[in-house]
Amino acid sequence: MPDEVLDDISHRRYNPLTGSWLLVSPHRTKRPWQGQQEAPSKVQLPEYDPKCYLCPGNTRAQGDANPQYKHTFAFVNDYSAVKEEQQEYEPEVITGDIASLLLQAQPVTGRCYVLTFAPKHHVTLPDMAAEEILPIIQTWTRIYASHMSPSHPLKAEAARALQAIPPNPDGEVAPPKHQLRYMQIFENKGAAMGCSNPHPHCQIWTTSELPEEPGKELSQMTKYHADHGRHLLADYVKVEMEKGERIVWQNDAFLVVCPWWAVWPFEVLVIAKRHVRALVDLSDVERLQFAEAVQEVTRRYDNLFETSFPYSSGIHQAPLDCTAEEAENSWFHMHFYPPLLRSATVRKFLVGFELLAEPQRDITAEQATVRLRDCGGELYRKSLE
Amino acid sequence: MPDEVLDDISHRRYNPLTGSWLLVSPHRTKRPWQGQQEAPSKVQLPEYDPKCYLCPGNTRAQGDANPQYKHTFAFVNDYSAVKEEQQEYEPEVITGDIASLLLQAQPVTGRCYVLTFAPKHHVTLPDMAAEEILPIIQTWTRIYASHMSPSHPLKAEAARALQAIPPNPDGEVAPPKHQLRYMQIFENKGAAMGCSNPHPHCQIWTTSELPEEPGKELSQMTKYHADHGRHLLADYVKVEMEKGERIVWQNDAFLVVCPWWAVWPFEVLVIAKRHVRALVDLSDVERLQFAEAVQEVTRRYDNLFETSFPYSSGIHQAPLDCTAEEAENSWFHMHFYPPLLRSATVRKFLVGFELLAEPQRDITAEQATVRLRDCGGELYRKSLE
Ligand SMILES: O=P(O)(O)O[C@H]1O[C@H](CO)[C@@H](O)[C@H](O)[C@H]1O
Ligand SMILES: O=P(O)(O)O[C@H]1O[C@H](CO)[C@@H](O)[C@H](O)[C@H]1O
Repeated sequence: MPDEVLDDISHRRYNPLTGSWLLVSPHRTKRPWQGQQEAPSKVQLPEYDPKCYLCPGNTRAQGDANPQYKHTFAFVNDYSAVKEEQQEYEPEVITGDIASLLLQAQPVTGRCYVLTFAPKHHVTLPDMAAEEILPIIQTWTRIYASHMSPSHPLKAEAARALQAIPPNPDGEVAPPKHQLRYMQIFENKGAAMGCSNPHPHCQIWTTSELPEEPGKELSQMTKYHADHGRHLLADYVKVEMEKGERIVWQNDAFLVVCPWWAVWPFEVLVIAKRHVRALVDLSDVERLQFAEAVQEVTRRYDNLFETSFPYSSGIHQAPLDCTAEEAENSWFHMHFYPPLLRSATVRKFLVGFELLAEPQRDITAEQATVRLRDCGGELYRKSLE
Repeated sequence: MPDEVLDDISHRRYNPLTGSWLLVSPHRTKRPWQGQQEAPSKVQLPEYDPKCYLCPGNTRAQGDANPQYKHTFAFVNDYSAVKEEQQEYEPEVITGDIASLLLQAQPVTGRCYVLTFAPKHHVTLPDMAAEEILPIIQTWTRIYASHMSPSHPLKAEAARALQAIPPNPDGEVAPPKHQLRYMQIFENKGAAMGCSNPHPHCQIWTTSELPEEPGKELSQMTKYHADHGRHLLADYVKVEMEKGERIVWQNDAFLVVCPWWAVWPFEVLVIAKRHVRALVDLSDVERLQFAEAVQEVTRRYDNLFETSFPYSSGIHQAPLDCTAEEAENSWFHMHFYPPLLRSATVRKFLVGFELLAEPQRDITAEQATVRLRDCGGELYRKSLE
């Protein structure tokens, strides 16, 4: 590692995906912690909870009953942040008017899904084998495919992918009423990350507008491509494979790193090694390899502090409604943002300085990598079958 | 309010200070909450805590003893995120090399202070009268002035301001060893905001680089000035005074609003009405008027859910080392980012969708304004003298 000095001095690192900097203060973990302690996540959950609105057969808040599903189950969120139908709104924009300049709004429509990972209430991703995670990835792929615009550049890839994925016997989601722009698949895991139900599940919010983060990344990747004639994440995979010092794990299709620009203490980035633009681009083998990567990351997380490790994670990929250029510049990857820093009960707070000035972290990405590399192997607790 | 429909539909709003959008989903608070509950802040603290490292006369972690201070007390953080002296680091940049492009770092030096608001362990800002908050603002002003570059465009203003502010009898901070670029004054209040000591205090981090957030704001304000020949926040004050619907409180010198683009449920922005560029620009009367604004905001916060309301807050102003153009484009303001949403124990989590896609809020800024406007008046609990 040429820049060993970075282990000892305060410095900023640049995130080329978002075009922004963060502060790294490696010596700072030495300070004593007298602040808030998280309640360690309970890992002793029943296999079925009659009060859980996600367990098979149970009735949800607004009266709908879940089927006796066997793998995954997707339904429209009973309290969606965006809806397909709402009152029309066309903001009046007057040229030269300061209210038009400074009070800008635009309507957003969309559809929000909840997707359970499995029927069992207590089986989290790290408890599952890659083969058990595969149906989740298949479901993501089917839902993505069913929301793509008719003229989407990856229509042929989607058709090919769907041939290999059997429809979900527990039911498919309906196609959207209006074409939407972007699909954000994300998981909030653990009470510390605002998750209000421990039954393993993710959410899928589709919106009529391209949200900020994927929008920023797409424009940074587009600019990089224009400037250098190569893909940003292709180059990044190459550089990380050469350096080695931030690689947590890899297989033929995916690289798992603590990225150079990690903000959260044990932040991880899963990157496709070849130019995968969206879920529908993955081959059968790659879908399983992606499941392996997700398994490796989440199992290492649980092993790190011997707890059910909280995080928010999410996939970035090509928009649902997208030009050929946008598809070309998209590069499939998955972010994991976990809050824990020192133990199962002591988290990193991204607060005052971070909110007002700049994200700040206390250990380097390289130090985090070593810790995550060293806690591979079996899940620390007996896996639930 | 012309756009009443925005109370009912999902929409995005634009933040001109950062150039980014956020999602507003006004109907979403209807969903039931079964997630994490915060421990309500204890407001029953002793006036003096022998174990507190901020109380007068006590000894800190690294052995230094606090003086028997009477108003405020500033000292260099024993666990600073940045330091004045560290090993040199000059990254090697090779043109055309992808590691130079994608693994960018730069050294950061600086000095971090802790500043107590008052000797009493249990007296928070909302417990204080504006006259008692004034010494804090005077100390901020003196510390800012003592860190300004020799060629700072506001040197004359600083000299004038200092004439009116008596030196702190409990000691002044030493001038920095090297000129620094920016001073971020911020407060983390409450365990929910990562605060590890309830003794009322803020932090002041000065750094050799301009951090992301003030950097983004300064470039947005500079661009607005160039495009329109007027100041962004001057126009914003004007538009909010005309509309009225987001004004929480005001006096002659400061406007307190829930900004159009608020992300946190009860986010507040305190804006100077005239072109104040930094603390040293404030007149004697304006310093007290600023203290009044801080008092009004923090007291309303405590009254809202009848609790010691957590938040992170911070001041944005002209850099310490700054060109005439940068000073001209700076506009003094203070952000308050409080996490609570529904009650003293139920907060908003900015997690999965927010981190991966776009900030999302559940009530409109106008609804939050009404709530904060309605809880003015006396502090709900008996003020500690
Ligand atoms: O300096 P403190 O109060 O110990 O620490 C707190 O504020 C800092 C600045 O916002 C954060 O980096 C820490 O994560 C937080 O716990
Ligand atoms: O939808 P949930 O799980 O009820 O809610 C959680 O995730 C959402 C999306 O990140 C956030 O907006 C909420 O603040 C959080 O509590």
